Amino acid sequence: MELWFTEKQTADYGITAKITKTLHTEQTEFQDLAVIDTNEWGRMLVLDGCVMTTIRDEFVYHEMISHIALSAHPNPQKVLVVGGGDGGVMREIIKHKTVQKAVLAEIDGRVIELSKQYLPEIAVALTDPRIDVRVIDGIAHVKEHKQEYDVIIVDSTDPIGPAVGLFAKEFYENIYAALKEDGIFVAQSESPFMHGELIGRVQKDVSAIFPITRLYLASIPTYPSGLWSFTIGSKRHDPLQIADEQRASELVTRYYTPSLHRAAFTLPAFVEELVK
Amino acid sequence: MELWFTEKQTADYGITAKITKTLHTEQTEFQDLAVIDTNEWGRMLVLDGCVMTTIRDEFVYHEMISHIALSAHPNPQKVLVVGGGDGGVMREIIKHKTVQKAVLAEIDGRVIELSKQYLPEIAVALTDPRIDVRVIDGIAHVKEHKQEYDVIIVDSTDPIGPAVGLFAKEFYENIYAALKEDGIFVAQSESPFMHGELIGRVQKDVSAIFPITRLYLASIPTYPSGLWSFTIGSKRHDPLQIADEQRASELVTRYYTPSLHRAAFTLPAFVEELVK
Repeated sequence: MELWFTEKQTADYGITAKITKTLHTEQTEFQDLAVIDTNEWGRMLVLDGCVMTTIRDEFVYHEMISHIALSAHPNPQKVLVVGGGDGGVMREIIKHKTVQKAVLAEIDGRVIELSKQYLPEIAVALTDPRIDVRVIDGIAHVKEHKQEYDVIIVDSTDPIGPAVGLFAKEFYENIYAALKEDGIFVAQSESPFMHGELIGRVQKDVSAIFPITRLYLASIPTYPSGLWSFTIGSKRHDPLQIADEQRASELVTRYYTPSLHRAAFTLPAFVEELVK
Repeated sequence: MELWFTEKQTADYGITAKITKTLHTEQTEFQDLAVIDTNEWGRMLVLDGCVMTTIRDEFVYHEMISHIALSAHPNPQKVLVVGGGDGGVMREIIKHKTVQKAVLAEIDGRVIELSKQYLPEIAVALTDPRIDVRVIDGIAHVKEHKQEYDVIIVDSTDPIGPAVGLFAKEFYENIYAALKEDGIFVAQSESPFMHGELIGRVQKDVSAIFPITRLYLASIPTYPSGLWSFTIGSKRHDPLQIADEQRASELVTRYYTPSLHRAAFTLPAFVEELVK
């Protein structure tokens, strides 16, 4: 008998992968969670039926949500990750030697525990002494802290269920306040092919708050359409520029390079239209 | 009853789309051919079970396989397309006003006929007086012509079945001979995530023949992994450079822009490794 996992990425379209083993399924306090093994993508973390990360292509997402903002900042010391319980973003953040403290604000403790158990390649950094793992509501945490962070990374699920508030204008206003005077924030902002309206709305909201707002892209095969966007808001430093070329060029990565940093902001014509 | 089309892009992975109508299925002399309607991607042309083109995302492939080589050439007058019976590449080629003649060498006449019937948005240019549509073997045509073309575009299916010869070193040698002294050729060369070995082999073969060889990328949601590569070999002009900025900037496109032309050659780290 063959078992296949199918993610309906829309009502009419999806991806499907042969399952070799179902390791865990659970209804947590916040979402449906599954860990499955597939031949094509290796082990997968699935939340509410959507692929969050796979061993084979996770490097793209985790490198690209982290290194652009961190490399654009001249001296990122204190970093906040909202969401990101699998630990992949943290693994990338601590590659920057300037970073002294990184706070993980993950609302669902089960994502952290099961990632440590089943996805050690991704969760590897969560025991690093620079990392402060907290099972808390990231929205509340951002609201309570002022002028504290150099970089804030919003590693959210899709804008349904627990993540809705992470796509709200009020949240971006609180992020602005939680950043130091030259802080930078970045959020995953879905697919230009699938969620163009959302991208335009986020761009509008962020640019009403931050003096510098930009969109960049990366190719993530297991995410809807394979093309993913990230919205970046910055108080002072232009994210297009690398603040410390030496630090950026020393990163050990499989997708990010300093050249790609700059190229990722060059948008296809139809995506330029979305952010106009 | 819901009908879904599933393309197994590998033995263990695929994409699946709800079918609203099956318009045509046929075993041609060369391949299995189907035309289906889907909500998500619009009308699809499917050859041997693989999505060749869809109304919703065809613009990426057709623009990106055409405009880079054509914009890198200062005066492309005579162009050959090997494959490409749907006509999408021709539609893009004739946007360049320098082009006086474009030959289509498609081995399967049924692809041309059915594209005209079912995909008029894509096949629209095939009746243009500058276009010479021939139902012939492109490999033989290339072999028989010397120093004739400014640009040759290889718009092939995957390297199985009728397209195997379009990925052979001998074919690239014959393309070199069929090009004028400053000619440029480009071929679709599959996905960096899925077909890394093939990309490396094509790069090696082409760079043994052409003084300038480069790889560039574009995001095509319905192709395996969503990230697609194109290999370009040039006798004189560097494809990274746009030869005629005016002509390139006047193109009416939805993906290609002169800025994206240059950015498309900036490769993620793991793709740089493939072409080293």
